[in-house]
Amino acid sequence: MRTSHEAEPMCEIDDLDLVDHHCHGVSAAPLGYEAFASFLTEGGRDMLGAIDPMATPLGLAVRSLCSPVLGIDPHAPIQEYMERRSALGELEVARRMVAAAGLSDLLIDTGYLADQVLTPAGMGRLGRYRTHEIVRIEAVAEEVFATAGGGAFVDEFPRALADRARGAVGLKSIVAYRAGLDLDAARPVARTVSISLARWSPGSRIADPVLLRHCLWVGVDVAEGLGIPIQLHSGFGDRDLDLWRADPTRFTPWLRRIPSSVKICFLHCWPYHRQAAFLAAVYPNVYLDTGALNTHAALGYERILAETLEVAPFEKVLYSSDALGAPELYYVGAMRFRSALASLLGDWRRRGFCAHADAVGIAMAIGQGNARKVYRLGE
Amino acid sequence: MRTSHEAEPMCEIDDLDLVDHHCHGVSAAPLGYEAFASFLTEGGRDMLGAIDPMATPLGLAVRSLCSPVLGIDPHAPIQEYMERRSALGELEVARRMVAAAGLSDLLIDTGYLADQVLTPAGMGRLGRYRTHEIVRIEAVAEEVFATAGGGAFVDEFPRALADRARGAVGLKSIVAYRAGLDLDAARPVARTVSISLARWSPGSRIADPVLLRHCLWVGVDVAEGLGIPIQLHSGFGDRDLDLWRADPTRFTPWLRRIPSSVKICFLHCWPYHRQAAFLAAVYPNVYLDTGALNTHAALGYERILAETLEVAPFEKVLYSSDALGAPELYYVGAMRFRSALASLLGDWRRRGFCAHADAVGIAMAIGQGNARKVYRLGE
Amino acid sequence: MRTSHEAEPMCEIDDLDLVDHHCHGVSAAPLGYEAFASFLTEGGRDMLGAIDPMATPLGLAVRSLCSPVLGIDPHAPIQEYMERRSALGELEVARRMVAAAGLSDLLIDTGYLADQVLTPAGMGRLGRYRTHEIVRIEAVAEEVFATAGGGAFVDEFPRALADRARGAVGLKSIVAYRAGLDLDAARPVARTVSISLARWSPGSRIADPVLLRHCLWVGVDVAEGLGIPIQLHSGFGDRDLDLWRADPTRFTPWLRRIPSSVKICFLHCWPYHRQAAFLAAVYPNVYLDTGALNTHAALGYERILAETLEVAPFEKVLYSSDALGAPELYYVGAMRFRSALASLLGDWRRRGFCAHADAVGIAMAIGQGNARKVYRLGE
Repeated sequence: MRTSHEAEPMCEIDDLDLVDHHCHGVSAAPLGYEAFASFLTEGGRDMLGAIDPMATPLGLAVRSLCSPVLGIDPHAPIQEYMERRSALGELEVARRMVAAAGLSDLLIDTGYLADQVLTPAGMGRLGRYRTHEIVRIEAVAEEVFATAGGGAFVDEFPRALADRARGAVGLKSIVAYRAGLDLDAARPVARTVSISLARWSPGSRIADPVLLRHCLWVGVDVAEGLGIPIQLHSGFGDRDLDLWRADPTRFTPWLRRIPSSVKICFLHCWPYHRQAAFLAAVYPNVYLDTGALNTHAALGYERILAETLEVAPFEKVLYSSDALGAPELYYVGAMRFRSALASLLGDWRRRGFCAHADAVGIAMAIGQGNARKVYRLGE
Repeated sequence: MRTSHEAEPMCEIDDLDLVDHHCHGVSAAPLGYEAFASFLTEGGRDMLGAIDPMATPLGLAVRSLCSPVLGIDPHAPIQEYMERRSALGELEVARRMVAAAGLSDLLIDTGYLADQVLTPAGMGRLGRYRTHEIVRIEAVAEEVFATAGGGAFVDEFPRALADRARGAVGLKSIVAYRAGLDLDAARPVARTVSISLARWSPGSRIADPVLLRHCLWVGVDVAEGLGIPIQLHSGFGDRDLDLWRADPTRFTPWLRRIPSSVKICFLHCWPYHRQAAFLAAVYPNVYLDTGALNTHAALGYERILAETLEVAPFEKVLYSSDALGAPELYYVGAMRFRSALASLLGDWRRRGFCAHADAVGIAMAIGQGNARKVYRLGE
Repeated sequence: MRTSHEAEPMCEIDDLDLVDHHCHGVSAAPLGYEAFASFLTEGGRDMLGAIDPMATPLGLAVRSLCSPVLGIDPHAPIQEYMERRSALGELEVARRMVAAAGLSDLLIDTGYLADQVLTPAGMGRLGRYRTHEIVRIEAVAEEVFATAGGGAFVDEFPRALADRARGAVGLKSIVAYRAGLDLDAARPVARTVSISLARWSPGSRIADPVLLRHCLWVGVDVAEGLGIPIQLHSGFGDRDLDLWRADPTRFTPWLRRIPSSVKICFLHCWPYHRQAAFLAAVYPNVYLDTGALNTHAALGYERILAETLEVAPFEKVLYSSDALGAPELYYVGAMRFRSALASLLGDWRRRGFCAHADAVGIAMAIGQGNARKVYRLGE
């Protein structure tokens, strides 16, 4: 089962507890096949009619890696897999997957599908790890607008965001989905914000580029005030994206303007992970992960991690799974990440570029230490 | 000769007949060295004066892979290779190459160099496979304009395109070359089309962005009516390209507007094959290949295919060679594709991600099954 | 220490003297830790406070590869490394590194940090190789403006640039940093140049897009007249960059306009090295290297070189280190380049794509022969 590349495993990495700095809750309700499959694609339920949702790299990874955790054969048919899931019950599947994933801390984005997935508290009851909240800027903006209306928004939003952020370890923005990372970096003036607020129809999501800029600048202020980082979705995601506008280097004008004390963590990044690594190498406050690719690109993740670590300083790379809904994603992400990291560091070691202790130190930094510092999690 | 990666070959792939869903006819006339060499570069004859045209990855692949098919040593000098070609005759070389390529169906783009290469019927006489036509939208537009003139174009073009398409299995567009895939996605109004038609000088090729949009929308209508897919050139090609504008994700606004029943097949894609794979993973009607790279990037094709299959669903990837003029391209493309696919699937199998039967199923889907479904070719 | 990939080394490459066609002088003064570390990052001194500057791929490469050249253990702590450097003296370290690098010719860009690094003459005294000058267009423009002022600039600059170029083997432009490679390709008219000159404040660097275009066109004229190439920074660099605007394919409109006799050498290119290789494959006068990545991406350089050689003609690829300040960069760049090239060519040979003699010929072309021709260096 081992390729020559995996000949000298770095056992310390197998036992390394990870800080998953960007994930979501698992489904609160039992997952039928369609709901389960839809959590394995970024294409939504439409894709289920077009393709066999298990005939993907992630589908193969889930079946081969997760089946043994459920006590069945790695290549068991998907019907058998779903029956076994159902027999164990959703919460038991979740408990097994997160336990097997080997995590010390989960940083949970609470701003997406909040009514369908477990809260951080609920997630905390599933296993022996700490949970922390990441507050999604746009979700808070939509709540404030729904409650306070456009008239009070400008005053209320900063207060509300700061309130929420005080109980959290970081903020997150999804401007990449709504306007692209190439949105104008200038802080919009009050008058244009008012005009945009007047156009925002109640019930609709925040989409106006001026409002998105305004909210992100408020996020920058809050992050600066509290000394917490901002996570920025970039690259890989769903059909809302114009992918090329989610290239993190499109955000460069913002990086030049925001206070250097505000740390920016680019999430996912692929296929622009080399670009994100470049930013991490030249901006002191830029960090990155390749979360979601250790699941959606599970079988090729070795190459993606290796490309990321071509130029990225070792203290700038973080781990995340971007798991959402299906608990299998926690496990697949963690296992593929550990394996890819062990493969890369083992290769460096074999070629004489580092000593064993160096390799272990790099693994610990990327797997947990960097996130502990960035989010001030303590030990 | 085998690397450790190739230690456990998947023999089924060696015997897998391929559907080459995007190719062109071979030269109708015997190829002298200069003509032969110019079919091995996208740079045109200018390149022949600047470099040794065989001192390229494709040059090495042709010499090493094709020489034995002609009965000479794999590393025979190019002079000997050309003499042997000449002694066998162009049609015999073509017969040998396409037979050795192992193809069941050729989908032939008839809109390029039609006066220099064999027709689908001519190609059909070279071997035991079926041939089908792909109609190039812009070529038909140019024919209609030359015949009917600008005045009758708006009425004539849809009729002519539908007529041609009825005898074909798909359409193709080269807007990426002429205007970029970032051309405006709105269907142009009649008045702007008229203005652009009035500016089109007889004898010149179609280049006006409004006309290109108009013709592509007509293509969408015809494709929807007949239930056939549209092939879209993207990425790698010749000097007409502004390469970055041929990134398939630039076409996203079109994907949001066209009917979801119209299947889009992105061709070539490199160096944006990861981007195309993303689209294939989130849009039910998007497909892709990395044709032309199994020839022009022959020696590194393993990596390109592996990158494509990082996130692409297995039912969304197709095979093509983009062979044109020199029959060697059929053979090199097919051999490098099979070898790269066997290497990747063998690797997945060895690492336990799939069973042997899964791997064979994936190979059959990508090599032929997917194309059979998309183009409704039957068995 | 060898992976299976390195099992059959191509010894000829170990002994191949390289032409380093893009480098800078080493530090004239002894380097303390902070100065040394700052030459190992493109992020400037700011990065030193944010991360351990040795906790990077380049940091590992320097420690593991260079320590033995200084006579200490490959994994010696950085303190010991710096003490050893200090004991030997800066010039002795430089002598050892450039000697160990195995270089026949250095083409030295004299337009950056000229007051801190050795001149070409000074570099020439360090070892047994020839040195040549590359003249930076923007540096000459800034000198002329400082001396002659805006009024005389239009007349003086072409004269001054031609004078400087006559003693050099090529020009270099850094428009990618100042305006992006997507700057307008039209030669600006005299009146707009005058307006921009009037706005240029003495002492500031050249940044106006019109002036940058004007100067680059003057560079094109001078290069055409003297038959010398122009080097163009692209891709990887420092915080001045909007990286996506430094994609070489953004320069395509210029490639269509400049005389085809003017050779363009794209430097660095990563993460757009595939894009640059495409241009080299279709434009007779385009060349490329992946310099700076054999140092900054030292541990992953095998993949970067392999991606470059997916489609690049072998006569279009050059070697450079982009070494600046720290002499270790000369050595790391050369060693990683040789190793990556030997690995790739050895792989092609093992898989039967070329004979041993072909592989040696390709290595000699890329390592030295191509640069000798492009810069007319003689033997």
